[in-house]
Amino acid sequence: MNPVEIIRKKRNGSKLDRQEIEFFINGYLRGSVSDYQMSAFLMAVYFQKMDFEETAVLTDVMVHSGVVVDLSSIEGVKVDKHSTGGVGDKVSLILAPMVAACGVPVPMISGRGLGHTGGTLDKLESIPGFKTNLSIDDYKKNISQINLVMIGQTDEIAPADRKLYALRDVTGTVESIPLIAASIMSKKIAEGIDALVLDVKTGRGAFMQSESDAIELAKNLIQIGKIFGKKTIALLTDMNQPLGYAVGNWCEVVECIECLQGKNVPDLMEVTYALGGGMLMLAGTAQTVEEGISMCREVIKSGKAFEKFNDLVKMQEGDISYIKNPEKYPKSKFTKEIKSTSSGYIGHIDALEIGFISVMLGAGRMKVEDKIDPKAGIVLAKKIGDFVENGEILAKIFTDRGEIMDTAVNRLEKAYQIASEPPVFQPLIHGMI
Amino acid sequence: MNPVEIIRKKRNGSKLDRQEIEFFINGYLRGSVSDYQMSAFLMAVYFQKMDFEETAVLTDVMVHSGVVVDLSSIEGVKVDKHSTGGVGDKVSLILAPMVAACGVPVPMISGRGLGHTGGTLDKLESIPGFKTNLSIDDYKKNISQINLVMIGQTDEIAPADRKLYALRDVTGTVESIPLIAASIMSKKIAEGIDALVLDVKTGRGAFMQSESDAIELAKNLIQIGKIFGKKTIALLTDMNQPLGYAVGNWCEVVECIECLQGKNVPDLMEVTYALGGGMLMLAGTAQTVEEGISMCREVIKSGKAFEKFNDLVKMQEGDISYIKNPEKYPKSKFTKEIKSTSSGYIGHIDALEIGFISVMLGAGRMKVEDKIDPKAGIVLAKKIGDFVENGEILAKIFTDRGEIMDTAVNRLEKAYQIASEPPVFQPLIHGMI
Repeated sequence: MNPVEIIRKKRNGSKLDRQEIEFFINGYLRGSVSDYQMSAFLMAVYFQKMDFEETAVLTDVMVHSGVVVDLSSIEGVKVDKHSTGGVGDKVSLILAPMVAACGVPVPMISGRGLGHTGGTLDKLESIPGFKTNLSIDDYKKNISQINLVMIGQTDEIAPADRKLYALRDVTGTVESIPLIAASIMSKKIAEGIDALVLDVKTGRGAFMQSESDAIELAKNLIQIGKIFGKKTIALLTDMNQPLGYAVGNWCEVVECIECLQGKNVPDLMEVTYALGGGMLMLAGTAQTVEEGISMCREVIKSGKAFEKFNDLVKMQEGDISYIKNPEKYPKSKFTKEIKSTSSGYIGHIDALEIGFISVMLGAGRMKVEDKIDPKAGIVLAKKIGDFVENGEILAKIFTDRGEIMDTAVNRLEKAYQIASEPPVFQPLIHGMI
Repeated sequence: MNPVEIIRKKRNGSKLDRQEIEFFINGYLRGSVSDYQMSAFLMAVYFQKMDFEETAVLTDVMVHSGVVVDLSSIEGVKVDKHSTGGVGDKVSLILAPMVAACGVPVPMISGRGLGHTGGTLDKLESIPGFKTNLSIDDYKKNISQINLVMIGQTDEIAPADRKLYALRDVTGTVESIPLIAASIMSKKIAEGIDALVLDVKTGRGAFMQSESDAIELAKNLIQIGKIFGKKTIALLTDMNQPLGYAVGNWCEVVECIECLQGKNVPDLMEVTYALGGGMLMLAGTAQTVEEGISMCREVIKSGKAFEKFNDLVKMQEGDISYIKNPEKYPKSKFTKEIKSTSSGYIGHIDALEIGFISVMLGAGRMKVEDKIDPKAGIVLAKKIGDFVENGEILAKIFTDRGEIMDTAVNRLEKAYQIASEPPVFQPLIHGMI
């Protein structure tokens, strides 16, 4: 067996067997398969795909490239959620404490933002002092103590995925369903969960822009989950406009604090409750998703969810005074209000463009090594379906980068589409698989 | 512009403009585009192809990555030949001195064998002392003195091609028509020729196994030649069985010496004369290909072609005593005769398999760094259409690697197919474009 033969075999559309996938992935970790051979292979997979069996083997090889955390000593059904990523997708920060407050252990390993989408880790780290790089021991300890932990991928968890993901990002090989599926599931399986709820996003601001691709990805993820004995369900949700109003790191944390305190941001909370209901159903705490949703509403109303969020922040060394008093957070040097130049209904807000503008403001990164400004971002004032008067505020921009403000304003104005008629209603949750 | 954007653009099937191709190729040479980005790009080109305009731009960028040799001070129309590679393809060693003997300057830059095909440089270097790494100054000097020079690609000639070819070889991205076309033509244009005859091989032992691919490649090559003001024609020739009888380095040189001395090896000389006729026609020395062929036959018959070959060997420091007396060459440690186990007509000889067996014997390389044994090889005794008696010799094996002899014998026996009826005649030259 040699690397070139395997690249050529996949390139020619043949199915790879376990031995070949193991040889290639493990060889890459050991250095006998080089970066340039792996990237050619990934591009061949992009074009020739992998069938379900190959994807499951790839996932398995990636899981066993590192440690599989054993959480069996912790009581209860451990449930996690994974989102395929979107703009303003801050759901985890509300969802995880909410479900944990219902008595279900939530061990969550999250990622960073890349490209136009944000990442849960960056949002958490915008809380001064908050640590996301816990050891596996602390990870286990925290779950057993407060039912909740939110960390980043460690060196021990699926190192093959870590290395592959970094390479895919710089070689134009991200958008491949088998590669995405193996990447997501290898991390989730290695983190020691029993069940998983997926939020597969579709639309302009999602990685899977077409609904059929999103459905295919969801089916792949569920099938792999089954193979590994993890109860898995998927929600297909809309990502045509940003979720909620805030897009940026600290401003999203503030929105989450408000929601945890009972504020209703309709689209954000609809998705959060639906996912929470699914998690409680999988955990066996609720009989149905609907019952689970009711339980979630209860812990938000009672303040238990917010209390759990505070426990999380304290446990991971975040400065709780900023949660109690978000106003004391440092402010961006420049702010600007975008005002409507006509009256009408908001017909469309381009989530992808909003994502890219927020990166430009400093809220995201285009390269792994880019630094993030937690204060930077956009807070929308109007969303799809809202009526706006001429001169009314559409959104507010926050940044330390004065030099790009004009460009940002210009692009943000164009990201809004205003029509004389209200838009046709589009459901936020397209379905459950 | 950034490398990932360009990879994604090609991956999605869009046409790249000159700026983008320049940015990517020159960036690769300077190091701002990495190996792994280039290999992902090459695989994307494998799948999405390049149109003729992109291929011409790629060629141009590769030509100007190095020196374009100026041969305008040398009188006459400088003509070269390029073969897309085959098994037993020793044509250049007869053709170049033959055409030079007709008064046409032949500046030839050749390659090494890789995979199942041999390379002219390895064959020349099997002549003790023969130097192929001349400077550009010596290259020009030799042409002006004896109308003939045969060297390897120098660091100055199309360095982008050199670097790209090495990468394609280890990443499964060799078999791409635009990449092959740009690779061939960039070297040929940079070497300073005025006209070019192409030998595009098709069949089992060729890189382009299908005739339609071979025709597409030929058309691409000719179109690029035209753009750069080089008169270019292509012959489409058969590569289903090895060309001539010898497959290996020194044994092929011996076969060429015999042919230069007037021996007729039918298929080998038919191709050689046709290409020679084409070269003389392009040079304007002959009015038609047929007239050119007659002139070539004349210089073989008169001994002038062999004399020119001797001049070449002397000029490039080869030991002429081995040309005068090939028998004094060192012998392989092991030889074996393959005998037929039935009587009948040779219906088929698998050129690809013969190529791979010869590599195994030591005559070729699977990796760039492999060392070649010039003595190793196979000399066929029978070719397609020949009648063979039970027990008669089919071929002879030469190698220093005793341990692989049994495998080689076994595979060689299977490479021959013997039938009771003579095979249907297949023309050697499929056409001229």
